[in-house]
Amino acid sequence: MTVISYVNGRYLPHAHAYVHIEDRGFQFSDAVYEVIAVQNGRLVDGEGHLERLERSLNELSISPPMSRSALRCVIKALLRRNRVKFGSLYIQVSRGQAPRDFAFPSGIRPTLVMSVKRQKPFDADAISQGVKVITIPDIRWKRCDIKSVSLLAPAMGKTEAVNRGAFEAWQVDGEGLISEGTSSNAWIVTPEGELVTRHTDHAILGGITRHALLQLAREDGLKVVERAFSVAEAQAAAEAFTTSTTAFIRAVVQIDDTVIGTGEAGTFYKKLVALYGQHIARSTSS
Amino acid sequence: MTVISYVNGRYLPHAHAYVHIEDRGFQFSDAVYEVIAVQNGRLVDGEGHLERLERSLNELSISPPMSRSALRCVIKALLRRNRVKFGSLYIQVSRGQAPRDFAFPSGIRPTLVMSVKRQKPFDADAISQGVKVITIPDIRWKRCDIKSVSLLAPAMGKTEAVNRGAFEAWQVDGEGLISEGTSSNAWIVTPEGELVTRHTDHAILGGITRHALLQLAREDGLKVVERAFSVAEAQAAAEAFTTSTTAFIRAVVQIDDTVIGTGEAGTFYKKLVALYGQHIARSTSS
Repeated sequence: MTVISYVNGRYLPHAHAYVHIEDRGFQFSDAVYEVIAVQNGRLVDGEGHLERLERSLNELSISPPMSRSALRCVIKALLRRNRVKFGSLYIQVSRGQAPRDFAFPSGIRPTLVMSVKRQKPFDADAISQGVKVITIPDIRWKRCDIKSVSLLAPAMGKTEAVNRGAFEAWQVDGEGLISEGTSSNAWIVTPEGELVTRHTDHAILGGITRHALLQLAREDGLKVVERAFSVAEAQAAAEAFTTSTTAFIRAVVQIDDTVIGTGEAGTFYKKLVALYGQHIARSTSS
Repeated sequence: MTVISYVNGRYLPHAHAYVHIEDRGFQFSDAVYEVIAVQNGRLVDGEGHLERLERSLNELSISPPMSRSALRCVIKALLRRNRVKFGSLYIQVSRGQAPRDFAFPSGIRPTLVMSVKRQKPFDADAISQGVKVITIPDIRWKRCDIKSVSLLAPAMGKTEAVNRGAFEAWQVDGEGLISEGTSSNAWIVTPEGELVTRHTDHAILGGITRHALLQLAREDGLKVVERAFSVAEAQAAAEAFTTSTTAFIRAVVQIDDTVIGTGEAGTFYKKLVALYGQHIARSTSS
């Protein structure tokens, strides 16, 4: 079965899905994106992702390529054409194609690209094995709250993680505080049993899985604090984990050379992954 | 006459010059580039640009798409096909096309794209009118020495400059020191007659025009210092200017609300633009 992608109104075989060399997404990373998990043929937290996409576009004064309801229709059509039950949807919107010039051109049509990927269904058991993270300096720009494709720094960081046998790299700011992973948010559980993840500002992306998990944890009566934490505090934590759209929640059992807690997924992790599993089931049923 | 661009071995009508939506240049700004001025049908400082391109590729572990001599052949062919006498050549090399993943994939073929633009010939008189610059916070990443397409921050900065009626925006680092313009290097002449431009490190790009001008100034016996300077020092300078490949040298006669020197292009500017004109003539005559 030919995989179909979407480019500016056309459903094309993925191999023939192209953008112009003067697309500003290619020449200036002047583009934003979302990755949305698909479970049971439906989007997980789809509205949260589309809302964040609108926010990113607005921060960069890129016109939305179409209304949110039209976008929903294209997404539905693309999932149906590809018969994707479990996987992820990738949406990218660039400012569009224009003769090369640093300043934003006006009056051009944004480029809208979508593609899909098949993945295994969410399975709490399958992701229960702990992972290792390394820490690296955060060399990114100062508007990481915008989900842009200016991703060279995190791509370099993730490559370093992979080369050093780790699942992810946690980026550390100038004050020695962990900002976030290269494509995930960072969490710890303090020895006192507080669930901690960094507050949102321009230094990190407001993760959708992060947001969902904060809400689930609060509803469940867990003590939740949004604040920054240092590498030393993370290494002394009872538990640690990382959240993202496609990897969901993973227990972090080693940070650099330090084993976290018991070295295995802990009770908080198991609790949260169960809550998140229910959340997926709820939001993708019927 | 149809403008021809080059994409991965093919000379194509510019309107049909495309890259795949999973090109890492489009999805991760995982690509580097050069813009080279063309005068008299020849490249200005071509070897310096090709050397810097190789350095950028090397810093990111992207394989060169071809040898430097093969690259020279393609450039020559593209200029000839387009009959470009005066203008600029744009070269972009991305890591290539691969299924989306933050970590650098291995074993893929880099994408090589080239295009040309016609411009007016270098003309010292035509560019003698002074320009205004504004100052903005430098929010870019910490590897600005790599000429990557991670250019969203400078694109935002240039847009702000244009919106505020300025030619360029000079970016100011956390210590209040000017790093560089969004697509140019920044220079001042102190009241004592010293020519100053920031030293190269990871905070700025080593401009080719900057490099040529430093050499010309030194050969001419001018006193040259490579060090950072503050906004206040720049505003109190005798002269200021900005250098880049396509705008050459422009006198800066206003920084934010402060008029610089006499408010017109000064004697140092005139001297340097004359030296640079000779440099172009020398390096592009056959």
